[in-house]
Amino acid sequence: MKIGIIGLGLIGGSLGLCLKKRGYADIVYGVDKDPICEEAAKRLGLIDEAVTEDECVEKSDIIIIAIPAGAASSTLIRVLDLFKSRDWQDKIVIDTCSTKERIVLDAKYHPCRKQYVATHPMAGTEYSGPWAAEPNLFDGRACIFVDPGESSPKALKTIEDMYAVLNMRPIYMNADSHDLHLAYVSHISHVTSFALALTVLDKEKDEKHIFDLASGGFSSTVRLAKSNPDMWVPILSENRENVLKVIDTYIDKMKEFRDAIDKFDEDAIRDLITEANRIKKIIR
Amino acid sequence: MKIGIIGLGLIGGSLGLCLKKRGYADIVYGVDKDPICEEAAKRLGLIDEAVTEDECVEKSDIIIIAIPAGAASSTLIRVLDLFKSRDWQDKIVIDTCSTKERIVLDAKYHPCRKQYVATHPMAGTEYSGPWAAEPNLFDGRACIFVDPGESSPKALKTIEDMYAVLNMRPIYMNADSHDLHLAYVSHISHVTSFALALTVLDKEKDEKHIFDLASGGFSSTVRLAKSNPDMWVPILSENRENVLKVIDTYIDKMKEFRDAIDKFDEDAIRDLITEANRIKKIIR
Repeated sequence: MKIGIIGLGLIGGSLGLCLKKRGYADIVYGVDKDPICEEAAKRLGLIDEAVTEDECVEKSDIIIIAIPAGAASSTLIRVLDLFKSRDWQDKIVIDTCSTKERIVLDAKYHPCRKQYVATHPMAGTEYSGPWAAEPNLFDGRACIFVDPGESSPKALKTIEDMYAVLNMRPIYMNADSHDLHLAYVSHISHVTSFALALTVLDKEKDEKHIFDLASGGFSSTVRLAKSNPDMWVPILSENRENVLKVIDTYIDKMKEFRDAIDKFDEDAIRDLITEANRIKKIIR
Repeated sequence: MKIGIIGLGLIGGSLGLCLKKRGYADIVYGVDKDPICEEAAKRLGLIDEAVTEDECVEKSDIIIIAIPAGAASSTLIRVLDLFKSRDWQDKIVIDTCSTKERIVLDAKYHPCRKQYVATHPMAGTEYSGPWAAEPNLFDGRACIFVDPGESSPKALKTIEDMYAVLNMRPIYMNADSHDLHLAYVSHISHVTSFALALTVLDKEKDEKHIFDLASGGFSSTVRLAKSNPDMWVPILSENRENVLKVIDTYIDKMKEFRDAIDKFDEDAIRDLITEANRIKKIIR
């Protein structure tokens, strides 16, 4: 299979690497707006050849769009337009974005919609760029297929098989539901980490040595605050409605803690912590 | 050296285990209000013998109080009273609490104050009980000596040597400064994790499968929400002033994110994330 990857960051780069290593890709073409990323992706063996976007679409059977939400939509439409104008009926394009309502809406009425499979491989780290690519990034993780009924059965099956090679667990969901779920189990964690980092960095202005005592617990909670704005600005912006709702609930919970502590109400603090401890049944 | 440990949880149990394994303790006596924990500590080899609190003080050279803040203060005074009434001038007592202002104030005017060394070995996990004890829990971590000038030089030196055996890095600080720092780099992370767990658990009432998508990022951010209320209620309560100040700053930061997202102000979101990214220089 000939694979073309648009966007050679952590996800695009890891897909190239993994699909080559596992023998699914005969050749991987890659394109990135940053020539340094293209060159690095070649040297790191994530892609075989750097090409232009048009060449990438022309030469590949499967085109993977792995650029941040926001930019991904217009790239998808350009690719589908090429499919249409060149009458390429067997090519398939997928995206890997973390927000889905907008991109599937933008593509909804495109005559080549059936050649597009909306996917969200739920893997990643707080690092970015082709140098962050990992050979086992996707193993055992969930891959969400969004609005799968909108793709042709053949295109869907091809992409299911591709992710199966990466050892991913398929989950099927509509776009609304995807974005709501992601707001709760991914987007809010990033916002809480960013806010925690900002809080402590603020204090560092007066207390130079505040981080000397930072422990494993702090590092774990603040880890996601290292995440890249190029990825996260469009996610928070595109998933605005859901993210705002979750932030509001979250601020309410923080205020419940604040009030209980403020009133020396140890029973209320205990009840809140005991309720929060139910997370144990979920997270091992 | 004969070591007596009051409180056989994660910290007390790990101290027993580590001090025995590294040959510092000739014998470890232990006491816990829960007989199951005493028996488990014996079977797990964390202590050699379970005794009463009075026997523990009588038989040991160093008494380690490793029970939650709140209860620790009155236990410390009882131990110091025994030192006084029995004229035990060579015994040393230490505590391991995560909040220090109250306990050092409670002991401040005790005639045996110099035999007390206030310490905070900054190690731990989100698990609790003797079964959570680990043989290398303290290696390379910081141990804070609080108000070290209030202890006799000999007692201080003995305890410094003991923690050196555990391969801990000593830091010296007064109690106010300790509690302020801990509010920022430890206590707030716990509150943010508890609030995150509560937020998502709340949503689970309507969306049964919300956790099917929980990823590594979510797990890392919510990990501390598994922490035990017996430990955390007194910490949040005793460090109330500092914790409230940090929570207020934190809620302000969350609101800045909320406002930027609400207004579709992508530049403001980007600025907040870019500023938060400065945490990279601290957390590797």
